[in-house]
Amino acid sequence: MALDPGLLRRLRDLLPGDALLTETADCIPYGYDNSRRQAVPGAVALASSHEQVLELVRLCRRHGVPITPRGRGTGTTGATVPEQGGLVLSLERMDRILELAAADRLLVAEPGATNQMVQDAAGRAGFFWPPDPTSAAFCTVGGNLAYNSAGPRAVKYGTPRENTLGLRAVTGAGEEIRTGVRTTKGVVGYDLTRLLIGSEGTLAIITEATLRLTPLPDGRRTLRAVYADIGAAGDAVARIMAQAVVPCALEFMDRGALSLARRARDLALPADAGALLMIEVDGPAECLETGARRVAAAARGPGLLDLRQATDGQEAAELWQARKALSPALRTLAPKKINEDVVVPVSKVAELVTGLEAIAERFGIPIVNFGHAGNGNIHVNLLVHPEDPKQAARADPCLEAVFDLVLNLGGTLSGEHGVGLAKRPYVARELDPRALALMHALKRDFDPDGILNPGKTLPEA
Amino acid sequence: MALDPGLLRRLRDLLPGDALLTETADCIPYGYDNSRRQAVPGAVALASSHEQVLELVRLCRRHGVPITPRGRGTGTTGATVPEQGGLVLSLERMDRILELAAADRLLVAEPGATNQMVQDAAGRAGFFWPPDPTSAAFCTVGGNLAYNSAGPRAVKYGTPRENTLGLRAVTGAGEEIRTGVRTTKGVVGYDLTRLLIGSEGTLAIITEATLRLTPLPDGRRTLRAVYADIGAAGDAVARIMAQAVVPCALEFMDRGALSLARRARDLALPADAGALLMIEVDGPAECLETGARRVAAAARGPGLLDLRQATDGQEAAELWQARKALSPALRTLAPKKINEDVVVPVSKVAELVTGLEAIAERFGIPIVNFGHAGNGNIHVNLLVHPEDPKQAARADPCLEAVFDLVLNLGGTLSGEHGVGLAKRPYVARELDPRALALMHALKRDFDPDGILNPGKTLPEA
Repeated sequence: MALDPGLLRRLRDLLPGDALLTETADCIPYGYDNSRRQAVPGAVALASSHEQVLELVRLCRRHGVPITPRGRGTGTTGATVPEQGGLVLSLERMDRILELAAADRLLVAEPGATNQMVQDAAGRAGFFWPPDPTSAAFCTVGGNLAYNSAGPRAVKYGTPRENTLGLRAVTGAGEEIRTGVRTTKGVVGYDLTRLLIGSEGTLAIITEATLRLTPLPDGRRTLRAVYADIGAAGDAVARIMAQAVVPCALEFMDRGALSLARRARDLALPADAGALLMIEVDGPAECLETGARRVAAAARGPGLLDLRQATDGQEAAELWQARKALSPALRTLAPKKINEDVVVPVSKVAELVTGLEAIAERFGIPIVNFGHAGNGNIHVNLLVHPEDPKQAARADPCLEAVFDLVLNLGGTLSGEHGVGLAKRPYVARELDPRALALMHALKRDFDPDGILNPGKTLPEA
Repeated sequence: MALDPGLLRRLRDLLPGDALLTETADCIPYGYDNSRRQAVPGAVALASSHEQVLELVRLCRRHGVPITPRGRGTGTTGATVPEQGGLVLSLERMDRILELAAADRLLVAEPGATNQMVQDAAGRAGFFWPPDPTSAAFCTVGGNLAYNSAGPRAVKYGTPRENTLGLRAVTGAGEEIRTGVRTTKGVVGYDLTRLLIGSEGTLAIITEATLRLTPLPDGRRTLRAVYADIGAAGDAVARIMAQAVVPCALEFMDRGALSLARRARDLALPADAGALLMIEVDGPAECLETGARRVAAAARGPGLLDLRQATDGQEAAELWQARKALSPALRTLAPKKINEDVVVPVSKVAELVTGLEAIAERFGIPIVNFGHAGNGNIHVNLLVHPEDPKQAARADPCLEAVFDLVLNLGGTLSGEHGVGLAKRPYVARELDPRALALMHALKRDFDPDGILNPGKTLPEA
């Protein structure tokens, strides 16, 4: 649906010629993300400054036109798909690192800077920003904040909510706000910073973020532990997380994931391997061996089949082979797989995986699991073949059964991928109805006309 | 002002006989906190369950009666003083530890449990909850969450916002809500958990908190570094915070604080000591010496006069003597001192202290500073003698100058004590006016009739 000519005229006045796309062919690439959902926006604006974003939101509000903000489109839930048309606001050109204050351990970035750009800038000063999604090379800081995206390191260092000090943003009312502080403590006023983080662009558009940096460790040690079954691996995860050396990665693969990885590659794994843990510790050089020894001791227990520690980077890469082989194998085998991102309390990981095996059996859909075991954050992959209509018809009820299981185990439907369009139908199952009503009220406060990313994140009020 | 008899009757039906105080003499102890402000409530309710809190808020809402929730009254800002009368809701009887899930590293507590009770319960399972206010033996978890109170350990382990997974609460509308998750990741819906933390009972009354636990370290090492002046100490703080061994305490005393402590006690300090840092590291036993060596290396630099490391608990206690001698000395010298709780970026600590020296000179009010240097969170003590009317008259303008200085350095007016009544007149100086307007809107969403802790935290709309 084309935008109102009056609005287009004003947008043309506001933006340089190459920063407003109105041809359908130009707009299409801005209408999808990694969810494989798609919609074509009326136009795409490529803002290059906070002031442009502010003016653009005001214009769209005046014309009642929806705005879908986006970074690089690596999200998996359709949160950046402009389902209701209107304007896509791409923040890819706002990619500057505005400030690096080493003594204050903070970095100020524009939302379009990639996670990697932030790591590179921080790294030159001896720091890093903990959130590390797999897509770090491409995904933007704005997207990381919108979804509260994390990655393996979250088990030790937390998610964006624990690693962001303050924000500058434009609300749906077309007002600029500054939230938070430039310090690691601050309790004046309500915490709007963490309210905006994870809100998927439905409350405000982040135009600057003050990120909290952490000093780089000297190095890391990598271990691989193979268990007879998921129960043994789950117990090991709980033991590892209960001792004082917190690993900086505690990744997991179930039996199905291992057998897939094996199809892709000859892996030196025990034949009866039922579950695998990849464990890494980091810290000062003098403590790495101690850390490795401590987590190895915790990893040992009934059902352990094999435990190896890499002594150099080459060996570490070999230990990671099973995990690295998995993603291409999954893509080849089931290119249209449904990739979920559930979380359960760490003590329930084994029960979750066992329950998922039963669900796979019941619905005749293979399910393969891997993920961030230390957070109980498991990527559940339903290997659906949409060309098989019978199986495709079972996908939705199968997914429902997965979510029921997760909620019954005291878990949550998303750990780091977010809600977007994909999980929106299930949100009301998880959230308390009165808490949800309050979220709708907050949405109206920030975005009175509902122009920011409508139809995402929260179910209809 | 007495409460409406109809409301009192309903409260008597709701609560057991000893749980409703209406005699003025009984109410007085519930009308003040550690701010030395005072007001007498119409009645005091000592709730013992979530259901009672829920019913009580509904009754008060129906009668338009303000509710001031409180724990043990250790706050320093008057946030629990019932300035507008009405009902004080003491949560001291809701002090149960409801659950300890070791494998999931969480503990569920009622708000009236003291911080110490939480530490004791967690400790028996090999864990601790990081927030550690000085008043830990008396202060409640509910209060810690209300103010986002931290303490020395925050420099390594964060504040309640980084160490709380979910809440159960009753809003000012008299509705029960559950927020958050039982896992360390979760991105479904907006983050109401962190919105309630730090809101000082103005949005909802917390009735249960799911706290995130951390494994206890094996031990710690204590170091004391003495510098010629604050500039040298400030540089050392920045160096210590930029290397990979994050200390679990990095406390600071300025020249004035040292000279006060010396009056109270003979301390083995260099005569020309201008600033002192207490540094502690914790972790696995095998890494403590490495950790101490690393922070000692970072502590060394121009202006270092003396650096000592304790080799046992006895020596550690001796190194802490200067700090321990300070508080009684302050109380004796200026029992009515004004104790502020400002934060500046770590790189500005020296500039802050130098600026405070000039302000002390200008207003003729001695200022003594100590606090959590690793967070830039400095407790600024104005040694005012109210019996000297000329000096007392200068206290307010002096405080204004302090706050101006802090805000000019990019800081915040409170790091862990909160706003309450004491800092409310200054909040609008710090917060963005549009962010503040949004906070008022959020307040109306949670508490439409404004009955929860009215007149606190946010300035008048």
